[in-house]
Amino acid sequence: MVLTKNGRLLFNSVPVSDGIVPGTLRYDESEIIDLDAAPLNGGALFKLLAVSADPFLTALMSPAYSESAFEHLTYKIGKPIVAYAVIVALRSEIPTVKPGDHFMNMFPLEEYFIIDCLPERTVPLPSDVGIPWSTYVGVCGMPGQTAYMGWKEYSKAKKGETAFVTTGAGPVGSFVIQMAKRDGLKVIASAGSDEKVELMKSFGADVAFNYKTANTLEILEREGGIDVFWDNVGGVTLDAALQASRSKARFLECGMMAAYGATDGPNAIIKNIWNIVGKSITMVGFLVWDLYEGHLDDFYTTVPKLVADGEIKYREDVTRGLGSLEDAMIGLFKGTNVGKAVGIVADE
Amino acid sequence: MVLTKNGRLLFNSVPVSDGIVPGTLRYDESEIIDLDAAPLNGGALFKLLAVSADPFLTALMSPAYSESAFEHLTYKIGKPIVAYAVIVALRSEIPTVKPGDHFMNMFPLEEYFIIDCLPERTVPLPSDVGIPWSTYVGVCGMPGQTAYMGWKEYSKAKKGETAFVTTGAGPVGSFVIQMAKRDGLKVIASAGSDEKVELMKSFGADVAFNYKTANTLEILEREGGIDVFWDNVGGVTLDAALQASRSKARFLECGMMAAYGATDGPNAIIKNIWNIVGKSITMVGFLVWDLYEGHLDDFYTTVPKLVADGEIKYREDVTRGLGSLEDAMIGLFKGTNVGKAVGIVADE
Repeated sequence: MVLTKNGRLLFNSVPVSDGIVPGTLRYDESEIIDLDAAPLNGGALFKLLAVSADPFLTALMSPAYSESAFEHLTYKIGKPIVAYAVIVALRSEIPTVKPGDHFMNMFPLEEYFIIDCLPERTVPLPSDVGIPWSTYVGVCGMPGQTAYMGWKEYSKAKKGETAFVTTGAGPVGSFVIQMAKRDGLKVIASAGSDEKVELMKSFGADVAFNYKTANTLEILEREGGIDVFWDNVGGVTLDAALQASRSKARFLECGMMAAYGATDGPNAIIKNIWNIVGKSITMVGFLVWDLYEGHLDDFYTTVPKLVADGEIKYREDVTRGLGSLEDAMIGLFKGTNVGKAVGIVADE
Repeated sequence: MVLTKNGRLLFNSVPVSDGIVPGTLRYDESEIIDLDAAPLNGGALFKLLAVSADPFLTALMSPAYSESAFEHLTYKIGKPIVAYAVIVALRSEIPTVKPGDHFMNMFPLEEYFIIDCLPERTVPLPSDVGIPWSTYVGVCGMPGQTAYMGWKEYSKAKKGETAFVTTGAGPVGSFVIQMAKRDGLKVIASAGSDEKVELMKSFGADVAFNYKTANTLEILEREGGIDVFWDNVGGVTLDAALQASRSKARFLECGMMAAYGATDGPNAIIKNIWNIVGKSITMVGFLVWDLYEGHLDDFYTTVPKLVADGEIKYREDVTRGLGSLEDAMIGLFKGTNVGKAVGIVADE
């Protein structure tokens, strides 16, 4: 009998405003688990290794939230929250799962948990690549998949063209900058602090600027317009990109952080949409898992190796311990973190 | 020697507001041409048979107009205006042109003219299909091409889906309605008069409404949302379509008549663009000649025959004589015409 405290990150209260605030989550250590003897009932016992802190998690906190692809994961008060995580199997009665196998998907944030079966879209992870498990929720996880698959499927990038990448210091944007440079494009990238501007340059951006202190439209026009727009923000930035677009530009609509919840003000409206007709622009909204067919195998045979070889760079903002993750998530919404926010829960 | 009066439709004055108004054009018969003996100097003498009156022609009237694909055709005061037309060769020193050959492209609106060579994108017309020449500037001309090629390339239509077609009584929209019905979709169509509503039903629309007296959003939502949007208007109608869109809808951005020149008011802004991300919408602006490669041969082997067989229906608003075309064009901008506005200049 190995009795162990099972730390859990619980949903404590629905935040009034957007984002996670102090008191939204609660770390709890009251549960005890017997790692050797807890009955599996045909399932498997897993240990949490690494966790991803993502902005979209707030969407799971609203009781009114009903149109999301994650609806079934909506948080319940007093229960562990769910997030992208890497787990390892300790014991298993599931035929396809062996002790020591690693997986990535959205899982409950408990140090240990027993589940009947692996949920849909669970990705089995290789064990021989030599990169940290935390990378599988970042550069080799959903953010990396989004950047790599979205770019491959929709950018139609041609050497010599110009790309504009928003949130270029974040986990998706920093990968997109590198994809664009590998395809021979000039890259303009934006983020919200001077520290992030330097980080974007280190990822290869030719022109990097702080959108809080510079005029986006002026910069795009000075650089001669754009052929590919990677949109993570929407609002006035999207409007500027429409205005500065070249003919037949491709707009990859990955997110609209500035527009979510904006009911008035400049980020709530788009004035330049007619450019879609005038300039024959293609604008594509997409969800990464709609691209899994045809891209996922390529991703996992290609990207972890590129990361291991240093060909694709990444930056992590690491928090140690499940109990410290709430602060990391609050930082994410304040924009104070630099790099992909990950939590290391255990070292195997 | 056959001396003939050569009627010409000249550009007389730049309209102050949008559209063509009385005095914008001037019909002139002062020129005399010798049809037998006028020197060709290596070119060919053509006779004008049928002319297309199109809303986009106003774009050629502005001296400030500089970003159009038609820039080289911008109208000059005192010179014949240019429009889509069907012509027949009377005499020719061009090796590839024989007397009796018919062609369609943008040509000067003169009853007779001599040109050195056929301009780029000139379409040679078949002579054995048994449909009127006027159809080659309508259902078998650019409006038909736009509907047929745009739908084939971008609609990704699946049987049982729902399409929403704006300006459904016009030459493009009425063809799109029929394409959608042939693919097994439910079709919702809108136009600006009750007479046009009846016309749209005759083209096969399942739900047809007058947008001036009905609420577009209410109708789209009552019908359960849309999978394909054929946009000829933009503005508030586009906003309603975004709100009523189903997941993974395709928006074919053919035109934004309501948004052109709108600098304030509801048609100047879009509030629901975030649906592109939330619903994985693809929005494509396109120009028909970018689709010629891969579609033009198919179009001319398929569509004239379908029209001749009555499989594709069309409605024309015919004006006879080049001198009467100004009135037809004014009607076009007032929205008083029903069906494709064409001018029959001569019967061969």
